Amino acid sequence: MKISSLQSARYEYSPKLPGMLRHGIANIGVQEGEETQSAADQEVIKRLFPNTYGKKEITFVQGENTAEAKKQVVGVILSGGQAPGGHNVICGLYDALKAANTENVLYGFKNGPIGLIEDDYLIFDDAYINQFRNTGGFDIIGSGRTKLETNEQFAIVADVCKKHGITAIVIIGGDDSNTNAAVLAEYFAAHDTGVQVIGCPKTIDGDLKNEDIECSFGFDTATKTYSEIIGNIERDANSAKKYWHFIKVMGRSASHVALECALETQPNICLISEEVSAKKMSLSQIADYIADSVEKRAAKGMNFGVAIIPEGVVEFVPEFSALIQEINELLAGSKADAFNALATWSEKYAFIEKGLTKESMSVFAILPENIQQQLFLERDPHGNVQVSLIESEKLFSALVKDKLDERKKAGTYKGKFSALHHFLGYEGRCAFPSNFDSDYCYSLGYNAFMLIQYGYNGYLSKISNLSNPASEWTAGGMPITKMMNIERRHGEDKPVIKKALVELDGKPFKFFEAHREEWAVETSFVYPGAIQYYGPAEVCDITTKTLALEHE
Amino acid sequence: MKISSLQSARYEYSPKLPGMLRHGIANIGVQEGEETQSAADQEVIKRLFPNTYGKKEITFVQGENTAEAKKQVVGVILSGGQAPGGHNVICGLYDALKAANTENVLYGFKNGPIGLIEDDYLIFDDAYINQFRNTGGFDIIGSGRTKLETNEQFAIVADVCKKHGITAIVIIGGDDSNTNAAVLAEYFAAHDTGVQVIGCPKTIDGDLKNEDIECSFGFDTATKTYSEIIGNIERDANSAKKYWHFIKVMGRSASHVALECALETQPNICLISEEVSAKKMSLSQIADYIADSVEKRAAKGMNFGVAIIPEGVVEFVPEFSALIQEINELLAGSKADAFNALATWSEKYAFIEKGLTKESMSVFAILPENIQQQLFLERDPHGNVQVSLIESEKLFSALVKDKLDERKKAGTYKGKFSALHHFLGYEGRCAFPSNFDSDYCYSLGYNAFMLIQYGYNGYLSKISNLSNPASEWTAGGMPITKMMNIERRHGEDKPVIKKALVELDGKPFKFFEAHREEWAVETSFVYPGAIQYYGPAEVCDITTKTLALEHE
Repeated sequence: MKISSLQSARYEYSPKLPGMLRHGIANIGVQEGEETQSAADQEVIKRLFPNTYGKKEITFVQGENTAEAKKQVVGVILSGGQAPGGHNVICGLYDALKAANTENVLYGFKNGPIGLIEDDYLIFDDAYINQFRNTGGFDIIGSGRTKLETNEQFAIVADVCKKHGITAIVIIGGDDSNTNAAVLAEYFAAHDTGVQVIGCPKTIDGDLKNEDIECSFGFDTATKTYSEIIGNIERDANSAKKYWHFIKVMGRSASHVALECALETQPNICLISEEVSAKKMSLSQIADYIADSVEKRAAKGMNFGVAIIPEGVVEFVPEFSALIQEINELLAGSKADAFNALATWSEKYAFIEKGLTKESMSVFAILPENIQQQLFLERDPHGNVQVSLIESEKLFSALVKDKLDERKKAGTYKGKFSALHHFLGYEGRCAFPSNFDSDYCYSLGYNAFMLIQYGYNGYLSKISNLSNPASEWTAGGMPITKMMNIERRHGEDKPVIKKALVELDGKPFKFFEAHREEWAVETSFVYPGAIQYYGPAEVCDITTKTLALEHE
Repeated sequence: MKISSLQSARYEYSPKLPGMLRHGIANIGVQEGEETQSAADQEVIKRLFPNTYGKKEITFVQGENTAEAKKQVVGVILSGGQAPGGHNVICGLYDALKAANTENVLYGFKNGPIGLIEDDYLIFDDAYINQFRNTGGFDIIGSGRTKLETNEQFAIVADVCKKHGITAIVIIGGDDSNTNAAVLAEYFAAHDTGVQVIGCPKTIDGDLKNEDIECSFGFDTATKTYSEIIGNIERDANSAKKYWHFIKVMGRSASHVALECALETQPNICLISEEVSAKKMSLSQIADYIADSVEKRAAKGMNFGVAIIPEGVVEFVPEFSALIQEINELLAGSKADAFNALATWSEKYAFIEKGLTKESMSVFAILPENIQQQLFLERDPHGNVQVSLIESEKLFSALVKDKLDERKKAGTYKGKFSALHHFLGYEGRCAFPSNFDSDYCYSLGYNAFMLIQYGYNGYLSKISNLSNPASEWTAGGMPITKMMNIERRHGEDKPVIKKALVELDGKPFKFFEAHREEWAVETSFVYPGAIQYYGPAEVCDITTKTLALEHE
């Protein structure tokens, strides 16, 4: 198999562990902290997790290893969307497991949680795992989106574990997967299976973080890759001086990715979904906000710019959400038949006009025709609008164009507006992990094994102090239940890990807010360039601005 | 002004010169070679360039500098699309000019050739130029697409030069800009202006190359950036195992970019426009070719893949070109009025069906509706179809889907086909230049000054032996007329630099051809990762596979 010269070079990289994990397995002791409480809804969550609630936070220290000596057979799965560094979590887990006892065994279940149900696995050995050290992707065992959440599934998983003598499962996933890890841990404890569950915090979206988990892995590498590309586009805009680039970046529910990219690249505009929601902004207000920047820059002779649009932003615009609700109801079930029977778009348009409330119709009316059509013509099997298919980068540039046309008529705007569109998502989820993510992920995996060896169940592998050099990082574990609260999901109250949205009073947003007016008018672009794995520490070892601001 | 840590680190990079240019200006001698002949049409071109035709190739050597000592005032312009390294050409030119005599002056004319016409310029000094060393973009003076080609323009340029005492102009541009450089050089010689013209070969498309110019600058960095992204997408495809990614890459007339990216990343499919043209392939044949790969991979359980589509490929499909011609004629001038008066798409479709030949209608009929509409609804001010707007990546995935639907009915294909689309263009034109492009560009600029100092006119700055380490590179100059032939352009015979298309009997294509059947069925993806500017030589100093294969 042919590999690139970078991949070959990256095999030689030795990921850095936190200081206290550097003295060999035999010299890792454990320190128990306080008993924990869930983030909210303590009584309910305590009742739902009688066996795993309220456990103590733990920290590893240099000292005598007091764990029971027994052979460990561990299973690992990758769950959900790809994030750079997943391979290193498995490498760290494998190395610790083999360092503890060469007889220990690591099973990799394939293609996500489904592998555990279908008992589809491979057993890792040096030759296999060495091909994946410090590489991107989840191709080492594949990933998948099946959810492990029913007792039937748990019973099957328990059987699979019993069959192979598996004593612990490591689940590498986002907030939902780790919520399910906690539920599985409780099931295992309640049924005396003797199997432990340890989670590792993954997601490029950056929305799995809290007072214990400083960041999820993959966020650093993915945002660096997007920022590289955004910076390149900014430099192109500033050279050609004739285009406005509307760049959508991944992030359905939280805008951490957009915000981090904005902090790295200083574009003219960056929308933040959480702010749009908090301020109940309308499409028209957002379009005016962007058009203001276009107009001011045009007045200075700069008919170019860059705007970052978070993927999920339209869902945070209250009037747009209301419109979507109405459309879903207007075409629910058999009501769609009458609509579908209409031959031309103008007949359909009349049908829509009759069916929507005046408020929603006024929102619908300002949308560009291709988006209007998409809302009605491309629906999912349940007849619902497919919001994720909406090209919001094109939507906003079209709305801005309308605003500018009006302003041109009014005589306030005299510039030229020519827009180009980009979507950055798949470009960054499988990049070679940055040194930070290589180190962090390897440490998460190594540390997960320590939690297993010490017999913990329902814990998240926790590496902290991440804005400092790796030697100063700390390692330990936190009961997953500590991060949980009760939320309404699909009409049911569920115990879940609280999703971390961008906090409008947090330092990263505050920094952005303090600078964005200047960025909107001036050309303050910063060009981060490609991720560097070598070279001066300041170009290859620094993690995100978000983390730096949060912990400064 | 805030800059990134990489930009700050790149300021410290010292670009490598060819060995013979490393001993200081006073120790660069010149060796004249043979008189030259144009690539074809010698008699005509000799007649058109009486003062600059047939000059000698020259090479610089370590030795006594015999150039006349005089103060040099030089002007430089950037012409056409951005390419990584343009800033370094100017830095190299500036450094040589100042090393020769601190009294020498470098003017930068702004926003491309128009700056020369409008006398819009800046004068470089250390403080200004140091901000741009080893950076991407053309923002140092801007670029533009105005063409310098009429005698009226030349007369204005001569006046501007006279006004400032400019003795030489350096034009950094692609094949057309360098063609115009040769014409300007001839004008200056014929009118005894005493102003010299030197060209530098720029273009990310890689189509300015010949037996003298091994490659144009920017191609290395741009293809590395695209390959990084393609590799990341491949790894995502191979992890998620559920999408076919159709990735369009820049390259209107030649497919060098697509081919180089394919050699770097080994995708399942890469179309090469030159082959499509040579084999007179139809849209249906191309779709079948891709569908074969989809089907064979599906049979092995792999419902995912990656296909690279060169931007200009549809223009190379003979039946599609014929269709475009017919549409342009069908709607020429006032004929469009009748069409535009029709209210619905089905009426318009009937109009089209009546107006096209049977052959073209059969091509039109298989296109997806959004492309059909685009061909008729979005036309340029002359009423012509805007071929460059056609989303060929979406066109081919739609045609492939149709093929697969047929095959599913026929029972030969049982897989799932879900496609995602990407266009890579602006993402790579302004990246920080790779070490190769940093060195090559700096050398081109430094060398351009040597050509000026020695009094040459109508020459292209030539750096050769590029597949070896920079110390072994050679430097010299080649009369631009040597690269010219006569081509029909816009109904006129014109002397132009021959555009280099992908040669189907050349080694890069042959290598691709020898492997593509395997790549189409297996997963042979290679993940190049981000451009590295530091680290082991094999990850940061190697140029393209294309160059390596051409010179192996």
